[in-house]
Amino acid sequence: MALKLPRGTQDILPGEVEKWQFIETVARDLCERFQYKEIRTPIFEHTEVFTKGVGDTTDIVQKEMYTFEDRGGRSLTLRPEGTAAAVRSFVEHKMFGYANQPVKLFYMGPMFRYERPQAGRYRQFVQFGVEALGSADPAIDAEVIALAMSIYQSLGLKKLKLIINSLGDKESRNAHRDALINHFSPRIDEFCGDCKSRLEKNPLRILDCKKDRDHELMATAPSILQYLNDDSKKYFDKVQQFLTDLGIDFEVDPNLVRGLDYYNQTAFEIMSDAEGFGAITTLCGGGRYNGLVEESGGPETPGIGFALSIERCLAALQAEGIELPVTQGIDCYVASLGEAAKDYTVKLLHELRKAGYSAERDYLDRKIKAQLKTADRLQAKYVAVLGDDELQANKISVKDMESGNQIEVPLDTFMEEFSAIFKKGR
Amino acid sequence: MALKLPRGTQDILPGEVEKWQFIETVARDLCERFQYKEIRTPIFEHTEVFTKGVGDTTDIVQKEMYTFEDRGGRSLTLRPEGTAAAVRSFVEHKMFGYANQPVKLFYMGPMFRYERPQAGRYRQFVQFGVEALGSADPAIDAEVIALAMSIYQSLGLKKLKLIINSLGDKESRNAHRDALINHFSPRIDEFCGDCKSRLEKNPLRILDCKKDRDHELMATAPSILQYLNDDSKKYFDKVQQFLTDLGIDFEVDPNLVRGLDYYNQTAFEIMSDAEGFGAITTLCGGGRYNGLVEESGGPETPGIGFALSIERCLAALQAEGIELPVTQGIDCYVASLGEAAKDYTVKLLHELRKAGYSAERDYLDRKIKAQLKTADRLQAKYVAVLGDDELQANKISVKDMESGNQIEVPLDTFMEEFSAIFKKGR
Repeated sequence: MALKLPRGTQDILPGEVEKWQFIETVARDLCERFQYKEIRTPIFEHTEVFTKGVGDTTDIVQKEMYTFEDRGGRSLTLRPEGTAAAVRSFVEHKMFGYANQPVKLFYMGPMFRYERPQAGRYRQFVQFGVEALGSADPAIDAEVIALAMSIYQSLGLKKLKLIINSLGDKESRNAHRDALINHFSPRIDEFCGDCKSRLEKNPLRILDCKKDRDHELMATAPSILQYLNDDSKKYFDKVQQFLTDLGIDFEVDPNLVRGLDYYNQTAFEIMSDAEGFGAITTLCGGGRYNGLVEESGGPETPGIGFALSIERCLAALQAEGIELPVTQGIDCYVASLGEAAKDYTVKLLHELRKAGYSAERDYLDRKIKAQLKTADRLQAKYVAVLGDDELQANKISVKDMESGNQIEVPLDTFMEEFSAIFKKGR
Repeated sequence: MALKLPRGTQDILPGEVEKWQFIETVARDLCERFQYKEIRTPIFEHTEVFTKGVGDTTDIVQKEMYTFEDRGGRSLTLRPEGTAAAVRSFVEHKMFGYANQPVKLFYMGPMFRYERPQAGRYRQFVQFGVEALGSADPAIDAEVIALAMSIYQSLGLKKLKLIINSLGDKESRNAHRDALINHFSPRIDEFCGDCKSRLEKNPLRILDCKKDRDHELMATAPSILQYLNDDSKKYFDKVQQFLTDLGIDFEVDPNLVRGLDYYNQTAFEIMSDAEGFGAITTLCGGGRYNGLVEESGGPETPGIGFALSIERCLAALQAEGIELPVTQGIDCYVASLGEAAKDYTVKLLHELRKAGYSAERDYLDRKIKAQLKTADRLQAKYVAVLGDDELQANKISVKDMESGNQIEVPLDTFMEEFSAIFKKGR
């Protein structure tokens, strides 16, 4: 019996993969312009990298990780997200000592979460993300947001909504935390078990609860923005000013929280508001995590980053009806008639490819008619036809498939002739 | 305490990652020319994909797989190689019914084997490979070999050795198999346990044994080439003729075997013979596997492919002392003097990047001198300097770092001016 894909995973096949390549190329190109450099960490890490770096009260760590023991009995986990490993790597390789600061990194690759598969949600999915480590300049918050927006805009997406918030610094967060505890604790019995345990550990996450979202205390909960101290307010103002300078529209949403303890100051999300996009509208989420490097065993280091899912990006493109300009059509199809001519095309084909052209021939002993049909299907720009007679006479015909023009050229100078024809035709 | 990389894995960091990107770009570009299309299969598969597709008598399956149960109790395995999953996907998506045949695929990504880590051998490593499914034309054997060679040659490698062999068709293989059994069975007691069990199951693999390699019966073992029937001989002759036509040097080595049952006809390896390359000299291995698709639940389909390791490719480059032409240097560094000017550079930077230039500024509140030092370190082609006074006077200075020439241009038309300067300077 034939074997199938594991549940919640997908094969990305030719015809579809070109869109992924296109998005990746756009992201890589923008990272080069913005000076974010690629880092590649392993697919799996010691499990503690995530229990510590993502937080052991999160759903990801508690319910969704692919954790296993290797043959040496070590607990390993397939990475569920990119930041914890990037920070592990930053500390392990002492990047805080690099001459160029801040250290600006990007990553792109598969992540793994054991969730119930549904439309647009996979157990293996691809994230692109960036981390800027070592600067607490609000200009870099704006840069990071601008980079994310630039990726979507370069792909042609228009129906985007950027929301931002400030979670404040430690002092502001503590004041807000006390206010939240005072707000919820008198009636905490009306909330779910998760919220009860969040009350002391991290009351901010109550605001994120899906079960209790309609409880009346939710709407009246104290906003972080009321508790920002002067430094935090100034910082947030500056981020907003820079976004305005860059012509990037945004909304401030005081309910946007990122639940981990080490998040602070700027938080943001980019959402699609295209019609029919479905329930999950968040395309990209990010924020500042000035405590994470220290938490991970490194020196005190400010940091900010975001992660976006390529799958959701593709869904947003589809919702807006955008066709990516994926290149198609080969440069030359080499058809042949007769045994000797067919053998000779092996060499012609290789010469075309060596010179940089995409080229193809028949590998199924098909008649000339079927070969020309294949050339059509491959959207060949030119078709070269060689018969045994032409081979004898040192000739080959080249047809421009757009104009229909066909000429004969000497076989032994085919490459020069073809290059000249090709250059002229484009 | 800070957490470390899992044993046998590596982080690929900026400074090193550019080499990987370069190799991947070369491979992708050549795949486009040769018309191999990318396929992306999941990082893990149902374990049976590999026990069946790689073979359950192999070292890979018996000793080296990362196998684990997911939360639903299914046995999953991190892919140890690429062919089994590509063939699983070919069958699952019925690619044998595609209009364009043969189906020519490539893949590139991490593979996992639990081996003892050593120089150049990792537990997570990156393979690039191709599979051409659906053609039994010897021209495609030559094409696949030519593609592998083209990748190495495009990178500048010179000290390459290509060895090829034929394993024949089923008839030839059976005749050879009987001859091997006759040869080894009288003295099989002198061989290791693995070889003893191979004698009946797959005597060809005895020739591959590392423990018994010096036994006198090894050197005198019957060669497959003596047992090739007419069809197989003709096929192998044709492959060799095409390689010669393409100007690709090779050696026939009758001892080159690929142990899996479904391998047949052409087998090949590309090795580095650079001095000081170390014990593992094989860069790339491939061959024909006409039985594998059928074995995996699909219709009878000929196939051929290869896989190569990027890590070994990098080692070969190092052994030959080849520096890849990795691009360096940003287009423009934007320095500033004064608070208002500094804020303004956020906008300038973004405009440069939007126009396609790589650009950077300071994010650490550094003095102008330190900023200029950073510009040097980033090998900036141009440095733009804006002070509060210039901002007032609507001016900005641009310095060509190669020539040392510096000019002042109006700030409000900076982008046009910069584009003109940049174009002229290149």
